Amino acid sequence: MIDNRIFNFNAGPAALPLPVLQEIQSSFLNFDGSGMSIIEISHRSSWFDAVINDAVERTKRLLGLDDGFHVLFVQGGASLQFAMAPMNFLTNGRSADYINTGTWSTKAINEAKILHKNYSVVASSEDKNFSYIPKDISFNKDAAYVHITSNNTIKGTQWHAFPDTNGVPIVADMSSDFMSRPLDMDKFGMVYAGAQKNIGPSGVCMVILKKEMLDLATDEIPTMLRYATYASKNSMYNTPPCFGIYTIQLVLKWLEETVGGLEKMEAHNIAKGKMLYDFINNSDFYRTTAAPDSQSLMNVTFRLPTEELEKTFVEKATARGLGGLKGHRSVGGCRASLYNATTMEAVEALVNFMQTFEREN
Amino acid sequence: MIDNRIFNFNAGPAALPLPVLQEIQSSFLNFDGSGMSIIEISHRSSWFDAVINDAVERTKRLLGLDDGFHVLFVQGGASLQFAMAPMNFLTNGRSADYINTGTWSTKAINEAKILHKNYSVVASSEDKNFSYIPKDISFNKDAAYVHITSNNTIKGTQWHAFPDTNGVPIVADMSSDFMSRPLDMDKFGMVYAGAQKNIGPSGVCMVILKKEMLDLATDEIPTMLRYATYASKNSMYNTPPCFGIYTIQLVLKWLEETVGGLEKMEAHNIAKGKMLYDFINNSDFYRTTAAPDSQSLMNVTFRLPTEELEKTFVEKATARGLGGLKGHRSVGGCRASLYNATTMEAVEALVNFMQTFEREN
Repeated sequence: MIDNRIFNFNAGPAALPLPVLQEIQSSFLNFDGSGMSIIEISHRSSWFDAVINDAVERTKRLLGLDDGFHVLFVQGGASLQFAMAPMNFLTNGRSADYINTGTWSTKAINEAKILHKNYSVVASSEDKNFSYIPKDISFNKDAAYVHITSNNTIKGTQWHAFPDTNGVPIVADMSSDFMSRPLDMDKFGMVYAGAQKNIGPSGVCMVILKKEMLDLATDEIPTMLRYATYASKNSMYNTPPCFGIYTIQLVLKWLEETVGGLEKMEAHNIAKGKMLYDFINNSDFYRTTAAPDSQSLMNVTFRLPTEELEKTFVEKATARGLGGLKGHRSVGGCRASLYNATTMEAVEALVNFMQTFEREN
Repeated sequence: MIDNRIFNFNAGPAALPLPVLQEIQSSFLNFDGSGMSIIEISHRSSWFDAVINDAVERTKRLLGLDDGFHVLFVQGGASLQFAMAPMNFLTNGRSADYINTGTWSTKAINEAKILHKNYSVVASSEDKNFSYIPKDISFNKDAAYVHITSNNTIKGTQWHAFPDTNGVPIVADMSSDFMSRPLDMDKFGMVYAGAQKNIGPSGVCMVILKKEMLDLATDEIPTMLRYATYASKNSMYNTPPCFGIYTIQLVLKWLEETVGGLEKMEAHNIAKGKMLYDFINNSDFYRTTAAPDSQSLMNVTFRLPTEELEKTFVEKATARGLGGLKGHRSVGGCRASLYNATTMEAVEALVNFMQTFEREN
């Protein structure tokens, strides 16, 4: 690998495309002939306007969005969205339906609770340690939205098809699979994604918002917590996280121009996931933790015969240049995150290592 | 200048120390031997722990903080702090005193109003277009805090000494002069600063918080908007803005090890400001806009005889490699921001250009 770079299986912040990193590096002292670093230019300059507008336009093309949607950049990560969604949409006594598929869904629900908003948890997979995605859910037809977590980084599950909510808009935390596959936005009122998995560095959260959702909000919400503030100012009511938006712009350019769009990205992600899952499924040594029909293409969670072996596995992998394979501290085990920027070469190297490790133990 | 870099007088995002930019660039593909970019490493790794802990320790040393203070990194800029301060501190009917010295103070006051909190505006310089810092203010002795804006980027004014508030803690927006001079934190309950002027890129706000201020908050505040969330998790309840914190760490290292601390930084800033103000004061062509006893060392706002000449001035300066001299769009005129990273060489180049322009017009 160039510059002694490792194969990075981190769950987030995570691997980013090498050409993107190289472009940031090469222009870091003088962005686009400005004579300034990207982190020194004014957000009110034509240089930065070009960056943010290109990021918005690429997002619209990649997702096939019409003018019915805003593309916004917000700070605070998905965790702030957990509060902003109920603050903006659960006004005048309206209620929301939540589906609980793990740690992040639970946190989202908790913010609605802290805010004393009305909500129902209409489905949960807690009965089986969040190892599956619920089916056959009854929704409340007058809910303001249905909240889901599209991919669960910790438990290794993913929604492969989105539920029929009888027209109630879905609000989805897509932090860990945004831009990993095409998306039919018709079902969604809002999609939000912390950038630090598939599209950029930490510190910026992308929000795709159906314009009519803005009508639900009141003006008693602090300015920086109102979606309308971002929608009316092209995400620049105050100084936005410029470096993060710039990196996202470059990643989206890579997605469009190098990868060739979200269909091709999805095919690549399916191929990577299949290679690793097929290997694990054919092994008596490794085993996956998520139900077969709910397994995530982004985060492959797996166990070894003993915790002792898992510890050795992670240590030896790290020594061999395969990083970030330790499972989340709340569940243990192992986890390989295969986000967009993870190459087939990296997955092959991982499978080779896993074969060797199995043979030797 | 190296790499055709310009002299950057932007008000923010603004010039950063060249050695800091060079270090970011050189290690961008492989941070500290990790085999990953700084934007690809886990915030739960020992690599990032070292970064954030070093940034906190350097802040404590530079400001001479004892263990009575938290050093926090929050997203959303100063604009989110305008709301978080009243949310956290104006509980149980408590009231705050605000001093209005311009655009940013006005916005801070407005967030307290949106939240239906109790507050008094105890002083304002609006009567003279915010061109001075108020004196001889009567404070309410039972206020939870007194809010000030220590430096006003748009109007070019700065508090040179902080008011005696009879023991009521000051909460200060120091976005544009934080770390530009030593600070006696005894008077302050909280200091906050968007990084994008003196200490780093946009997208991260530093918060220095007296621990006892945490006692004012209730648990009905959304998690990401409670200071206690950041204080109890070393600013890592969720993924923090890693790149911004890393850049701040390098700027603080430069401040400590290259500049030699805040006394030396202040002396340098005084020398830069004196050179420019002395030149303007001796000119019949240029004139400052702020009252002499309130002039900012960070943002020197000035006018030329006509708006036409101001336009030509900014255009010719830009062509000569002197960038960012246009005044804020809300007030017009010209503005030279002389933050920590602006060199004496840059100020000399500006004064030389101003002399030439005066002679030719």
